[in-house]
Amino acid sequence: MRGAVMHAPGDVRVEDRPMPTIVEPTDAIIRIAATCVCGSDLWPYRGLEPVAAPQPMGHEYVGVVTEIGEAVREIRVGDFVVGSFFSSDNTCEICLAGYQTHCVHRGPGAASGGQAQYTRVPLADGTLVATPGQPDADLVPSLLAASDVLGTGWFAAVAAEVGPGKTVAVVGDGAVGLLGVLAAKQLGAERIIAMSRHADRQALAREFGATDIVTERGDEGVARIKELTGGLGAHSVIEAVGTQESMMQAIRATRPGGHVGYVGVSHDVSLPGLELFFSGVHLHGGPAPVRRFLPDLIDRIWRREIDPGKVFDLVLPLEEAAAAYRAMDERRAIKVLLTV
Amino acid sequence: MRGAVMHAPGDVRVEDRPMPTIVEPTDAIIRIAATCVCGSDLWPYRGLEPVAAPQPMGHEYVGVVTEIGEAVREIRVGDFVVGSFFSSDNTCEICLAGYQTHCVHRGPGAASGGQAQYTRVPLADGTLVATPGQPDADLVPSLLAASDVLGTGWFAAVAAEVGPGKTVAVVGDGAVGLLGVLAAKQLGAERIIAMSRHADRQALAREFGATDIVTERGDEGVARIKELTGGLGAHSVIEAVGTQESMMQAIRATRPGGHVGYVGVSHDVSLPGLELFFSGVHLHGGPAPVRRFLPDLIDRIWRREIDPGKVFDLVLPLEEAAAAYRAMDERRAIKVLLTV
Repeated sequence: MRGAVMHAPGDVRVEDRPMPTIVEPTDAIIRIAATCVCGSDLWPYRGLEPVAAPQPMGHEYVGVVTEIGEAVREIRVGDFVVGSFFSSDNTCEICLAGYQTHCVHRGPGAASGGQAQYTRVPLADGTLVATPGQPDADLVPSLLAASDVLGTGWFAAVAAEVGPGKTVAVVGDGAVGLLGVLAAKQLGAERIIAMSRHADRQALAREFGATDIVTERGDEGVARIKELTGGLGAHSVIEAVGTQESMMQAIRATRPGGHVGYVGVSHDVSLPGLELFFSGVHLHGGPAPVRRFLPDLIDRIWRREIDPGKVFDLVLPLEEAAAAYRAMDERRAIKVLLTV
Repeated sequence: MRGAVMHAPGDVRVEDRPMPTIVEPTDAIIRIAATCVCGSDLWPYRGLEPVAAPQPMGHEYVGVVTEIGEAVREIRVGDFVVGSFFSSDNTCEICLAGYQTHCVHRGPGAASGGQAQYTRVPLADGTLVATPGQPDADLVPSLLAASDVLGTGWFAAVAAEVGPGKTVAVVGDGAVGLLGVLAAKQLGAERIIAMSRHADRQALAREFGATDIVTERGDEGVARIKELTGGLGAHSVIEAVGTQESMMQAIRATRPGGHVGYVGVSHDVSLPGLELFFSGVHLHGGPAPVRRFLPDLIDRIWRREIDPGKVFDLVLPLEEAAAAYRAMDERRAIKVLLTV
């Protein structure tokens, strides 16, 4: 079986790897149809997270179940499934509260790596959701998006309490930020301000529902959001970057009593207590519990109400995973889909 | 008129001061019946906040209106009123959303100091709430508590999304923490864990509704909360201290998806982004919009459903304000009421 392995920062290779097999009776094996490179994969690629040993990569995946463990009840061989990037039992108290990424039994969703021909998914019943049937080919990118970036953008919008009548600002124009725009639109936001300085991303933001574009960043970006909101700030701000600047931009662009939904993995971020205290904002975020949203998201995709697959602006075969990482790293692509 | 002035850390004097007068047409003048010393007054008293010039003190007050500006419509001369520590118009978009402490026209609630015989209250209609009549003397301490500590503890419980079926932990056994316990009980919490190592405060916490007492602090306190909650952490945690240790204790004691309501004024607090991200908690707090809760709190006190005035365990005349500060500073009193 072929699969992508990161050997060191900047060094991703597609290699022969052992075929995954059932380890726990709750496992499923999936033949992957499509996978992709995540913004979070770029942290080790850029040397910002350590790569201690050669590391199978990938945690976003859709495909067909080829084998199940004897304790799997819901998922069946032959199902086309969408998985989330953490595995979860979906039965513990934390899962039932909608926080499957914090499941008491959580682990990686694609235990043997998702950028591969096959992967092993633990806790299959609690991690995977089957589509109503085998999807048309044009639906596959959107279903793949649901596996992480759509689910994450959606969670950010929910965490930011987006809703009818509200003004939403989105910090970050990567795939997650753009799908945060899409989620805000679907959740009924009145006005959606996308913060972006790239023409192609601005265009996609508008297509997904953005009503305004702000090109300024940092304090200037905050001032612009204030200008657009009668001096008050947005009701809801989605933070989809994960840097000190973007977090402070999000907090400062939110009105008192408003909500920041943050999903950019916070690297070297330190929030000043006194400023946060006097901001009066709500702060919620973290690794998105995609599993909570998957049934609804799959349904919206299946009915062709949303087309989140548009974030994939480059498609390459799995064998060219290294080129996919380069394109993402150099920001030549918003997000790269790998066909398997 | 007599009033308390802080000249330097540790130096509070009651002096002759000018009688406050109407400055803006929306002002009211109040003859104060009772006032008190706030935990936040201790920050400058202890030299942890600068005292640049002699500073009239006090922002918690109840009393009788003696004069109103010509634009005051709701509040009348002779009303017994409870005020909040920030003034607010109660009509702007931020106020209408329930965040009166962030009102676009906000200012101090007791503009000329509340530890005094009289004070000037700006934006009287939006800041003050009149009681249904002149209160019995035994209700005055509870009404005074509503002005800040009860309103703040209540906001912390609301910010922590306390409700039926939930387990609540309270970090901090000062007046605000204790009234957070009272609020949690009133809001229907199933289990209330007070963190305290002082016998008198533990007793009051139990009287207010605490079901469990945890004496450990920091990591040990967190471990104890986890033990009491099946390893998950509390659903809701009230933070009523404002230090790095107490904030981290609150965040770590909360289960993923749970809520931290923080009202301790954060001094030298810096929240690590990555830990906050992976905690999955909701964080909300800041200066409590007491005005939002005052009508309901006054009603509960008037009907003698709650007795928050019990946090006052020392009563002194205004002239002895210096002794009141000392008693609070040395933790000989939970909270000192000053009669005027």
